[in-house]
Amino acid sequence: MSRERLQALREELARQGVQAFLVPRGDEYQNEYVPASDERLAWLTNFTGSAGMALVSMEHAALFVDGRYTLQAQQQIGDQPIDQEDLNQDAIADWLCDQLKTGEALGYDPRLHTEPGLALLHKRLGERDIALRPLDDNPIDAVWTDRPATPCGPARPHPYTFTGEHSADKRRRIAALLADKRADALWLPNPEVCAWLFNIRGSDVPHLPVALASALLYRDGSATLYLAKEAVGDALIEHLDNEVSIVSDKRELFAAARRHHVAKVWVDPLITNCWTLQQLRALDIELLQERDPIIAAKARKNAVELAGTRAAHERDGAALCEFLAELPGAVAAATPDNSFGELKAVQLLRSKREQREGFSDDSFDTISGYGPNGAVVHYRVSRESSLPIKPEGIYLVDSGAQYPDGTTDVTRTVALGSFPHLAKEHFTRVLKGHIAIATLRFPIGTCGEQIDAFARRALWDQGLDYAHGTGHGVGSFLSVHEGPQRIGKAGTGVPLQAGMIVSNEPGFYLTGQYGIRIENLVFVKESAEHYGFLEFEELTLAPIDRTLIEPALLSEGERKWLNDYHRRVRETLMPLVNENTQRWLKDVTEPLPL
Amino acid sequence: MSRERLQALREELARQGVQAFLVPRGDEYQNEYVPASDERLAWLTNFTGSAGMALVSMEHAALFVDGRYTLQAQQQIGDQPIDQEDLNQDAIADWLCDQLKTGEALGYDPRLHTEPGLALLHKRLGERDIALRPLDDNPIDAVWTDRPATPCGPARPHPYTFTGEHSADKRRRIAALLADKRADALWLPNPEVCAWLFNIRGSDVPHLPVALASALLYRDGSATLYLAKEAVGDALIEHLDNEVSIVSDKRELFAAARRHHVAKVWVDPLITNCWTLQQLRALDIELLQERDPIIAAKARKNAVELAGTRAAHERDGAALCEFLAELPGAVAAATPDNSFGELKAVQLLRSKREQREGFSDDSFDTISGYGPNGAVVHYRVSRESSLPIKPEGIYLVDSGAQYPDGTTDVTRTVALGSFPHLAKEHFTRVLKGHIAIATLRFPIGTCGEQIDAFARRALWDQGLDYAHGTGHGVGSFLSVHEGPQRIGKAGTGVPLQAGMIVSNEPGFYLTGQYGIRIENLVFVKESAEHYGFLEFEELTLAPIDRTLIEPALLSEGERKWLNDYHRRVRETLMPLVNENTQRWLKDVTEPLPL
Repeated sequence: MSRERLQALREELARQGVQAFLVPRGDEYQNEYVPASDERLAWLTNFTGSAGMALVSMEHAALFVDGRYTLQAQQQIGDQPIDQEDLNQDAIADWLCDQLKTGEALGYDPRLHTEPGLALLHKRLGERDIALRPLDDNPIDAVWTDRPATPCGPARPHPYTFTGEHSADKRRRIAALLADKRADALWLPNPEVCAWLFNIRGSDVPHLPVALASALLYRDGSATLYLAKEAVGDALIEHLDNEVSIVSDKRELFAAARRHHVAKVWVDPLITNCWTLQQLRALDIELLQERDPIIAAKARKNAVELAGTRAAHERDGAALCEFLAELPGAVAAATPDNSFGELKAVQLLRSKREQREGFSDDSFDTISGYGPNGAVVHYRVSRESSLPIKPEGIYLVDSGAQYPDGTTDVTRTVALGSFPHLAKEHFTRVLKGHIAIATLRFPIGTCGEQIDAFARRALWDQGLDYAHGTGHGVGSFLSVHEGPQRIGKAGTGVPLQAGMIVSNEPGFYLTGQYGIRIENLVFVKESAEHYGFLEFEELTLAPIDRTLIEPALLSEGERKWLNDYHRRVRETLMPLVNENTQRWLKDVTEPLPL
Repeated sequence: MSRERLQALREELARQGVQAFLVPRGDEYQNEYVPASDERLAWLTNFTGSAGMALVSMEHAALFVDGRYTLQAQQQIGDQPIDQEDLNQDAIADWLCDQLKTGEALGYDPRLHTEPGLALLHKRLGERDIALRPLDDNPIDAVWTDRPATPCGPARPHPYTFTGEHSADKRRRIAALLADKRADALWLPNPEVCAWLFNIRGSDVPHLPVALASALLYRDGSATLYLAKEAVGDALIEHLDNEVSIVSDKRELFAAARRHHVAKVWVDPLITNCWTLQQLRALDIELLQERDPIIAAKARKNAVELAGTRAAHERDGAALCEFLAELPGAVAAATPDNSFGELKAVQLLRSKREQREGFSDDSFDTISGYGPNGAVVHYRVSRESSLPIKPEGIYLVDSGAQYPDGTTDVTRTVALGSFPHLAKEHFTRVLKGHIAIATLRFPIGTCGEQIDAFARRALWDQGLDYAHGTGHGVGSFLSVHEGPQRIGKAGTGVPLQAGMIVSNEPGFYLTGQYGIRIENLVFVKESAEHYGFLEFEELTLAPIDRTLIEPALLSEGERKWLNDYHRRVRETLMPLVNENTQRWLKDVTEPLPL
């Protein structure tokens, strides 16, 4: 099948006069999750990971993926005539320099790339006089005969009870920043920033409750909003005041810019596609290229959003507890003919969440990893990979949900009977790191990279570490991964600020054996006692498996933190769970001796 | 006096056709300490701090200093017609934009500035068509009638027993890096990198044991070295093999570059002055602008250098202990007529160091701060500021020395009788931070900014912090402040590497009351137990005042660290100190109960 698709694509490339083509994973909004209509990379290569890039020349094809996806890509490529390479900009440039001759051209779809994303290719190919040519019509779309339609589900108003700030007020305070920069308008390149600014949500993208949109905000707080015609109903029109005009063709945004005499527009080059920049330049509009101010604004949750996410975390914690309480029984009841595997665990957990008020979707594909599968950091269970779960060993489950009042993301690691001797020490050291972050007080201005090592020190002491970040930002009924803040080794230069939600998820992975990760979401708040200092407050409510803890490795303060946390979990969730789970909850939250 | 100097300077500026002039603190080598002949800023303004910039226009003059020097500058400016401003590039540009009109010109001495240092001024003044004009002759030198001569003390060979690597070997391994970059030569812009590469030392700069020099290293490992004629004796000529030609006029370096057909030269723009770059460009030599590879090479000490610095730290620790042992007696013996003040303490400490083998100089001006003066982070005691030390309160002494086998830098804070109640908690929390760094194990690739917070956490817990870095690099009989590594909040992107020496100096300062700082030098070494991990080993040997410790605030592990450290201090220094100090040492290193 892939041979025919490659063949058809090459004929289309020849027709469009280019000798190679870039097939990225992203859509025109640079979303982490993309609609089915934009799964071009999967259509061409079968690869379904969340990051990757295919290159197709007249003779060869290659798929570039990062370390997380080496194995998965290998399996999904199978025997197709596609080489597999390590994903990095230089390797991509090398491959192209090898395939293309001076005077030839590499085609790309300018909607699917950003200018910084292509900068190195421009330089490297330019040095060899190989052109980088934007193509008006994506050659894959021309040959993908059964391509699904672009989704255009209804855009729904997201009410004030959840947002705590009217769109008009948000627009005014963002517009004030435009005046400071002497910009006439802000370009809103993607559904996420539009969802926040206009207080709308939708269902066009898996796991991300948004409607496909982009927009222009003017200096007076008025705006032009692009949404597909089918997305706009009466409730939405009523919700948006008359300062927002809706257009149903993206090109009308540029016409609106001209009508509004926009001479200078603020665009964030990291999230705005090349096509948009081309259109703006063609209108002689000056570009102010800086980070989108909405990214920072939406990261700082207001009191209503924080109250919402607290409530969502209570319901989500209750659902997770019911799952964890039933898990041992389901595992014990399994028979060779009717096994209980990783996939069934995902379904059971989902069914518990679906019973909770407002549940709308998982916030990402659940990671359900038993034994060695738990050691695969970005494991996604499939029918082929799903291991049967037995009443022994270690099981890791990382999952989350979208509720209108908040987005959740939680990881628990549990023992299902006897387990490898070392796991207790590893689990306890991960827990020490988790507590070190949870209990930290830090001055205003501190960035995630400055505190990341607290999560690692107990592992470092034994010459151990984990190869992922410690925390990511989380949205308010928006993306489960949002910036600008982050806790990790890499520098961000972004201080943690009051109102930000961030995950705290140290881990440890013993390849072929088990994975351990303990993840809570926390939010940043001002210290009540110490002016100028910030602290974290736990949002996530779920027991941490005491059978995996070696109490002697914990300090008295750490044991006290755990007992206090477990008391809060028990008291908060007890009224929200079924009887069986109540008994379980009482048992698993018994305090450790101090 | 200053009025006349300003007047003379303005006449010279008019003669040279510029309307304003920049007077930086640095010399042409961008040294931290400058020879008396380069103290132009002090000559013009009286200000003697280690960082600052004066601006002189036809009407006004202003001195720009950072927060450390606000008070000192105010006192030193006195009633001179010089305004005082906060040191930052934008403020300097604002002042100049205010003073100069379109078409006018700002003069600068291209030897005293780097291009990155002038970049913002170029941009800001360029926007208003104000020229930035390099002046061949520094206008201050023209009017500074009694300017001291440029120093040209002898350049001495620094023997293999201290360096552990012959200059020829160093030159070959640095030259190999040139080949990688396809550069024909490396420009060595300053005495520090020359001292390391050629294994020479001198005494032209206070606290920095170097001879004024610059050089060119070629791809074959040969070199042209500039040294003043008076600096070169027979021993030096014998020491330098015949692959090094010595020239006694800086311009001959450029002639040598031409003779060697240098087409591309590696220069570090952050430490190379504008004049040099102008000269190289005038020869049509291509510039490869990257960080000087010698900075990274000299930071990683070899086994001989580490053995040397260990030995130097033993002698220095012995000297410091003799001082600390005598201090209470000297304080007690003081009378109103014959007081013992901060300045006398500096002299006593210096006299102890002078008795030690190889002592060559203090490695910086000793910080000797009693009571409130200890809270001034960059305090330099003067006859006017020197407080009498009494048998009560808290005294901070931060000092170091240059020995041929190593450079030292140590801070101790001691109680001299009764002291404010809170000091014990503050001291103990600073100590906890100190121990947290000292005992850290961390993976290869970790940068200083990623571990800095360990030094602060015990203070952060109480809403406290200190406004300086935690650690700086230290040279091997070279600068007491060297890069590229650093431990601090600001990002460096530079991993700590085996062989690097770094200070560990958390502190706490209560304005008007006292200052606390505990500083040891440590070096980075590979973990013997855990492959891929690094640890610190203590170099500094001196007791930490137990009377300021609140043992209940220390964990058992922290008390054990202190006891182990004190045992090592006692065992190592006992044979090296006088009898009185031996008794004292035995007493002050008694273990804390675990």
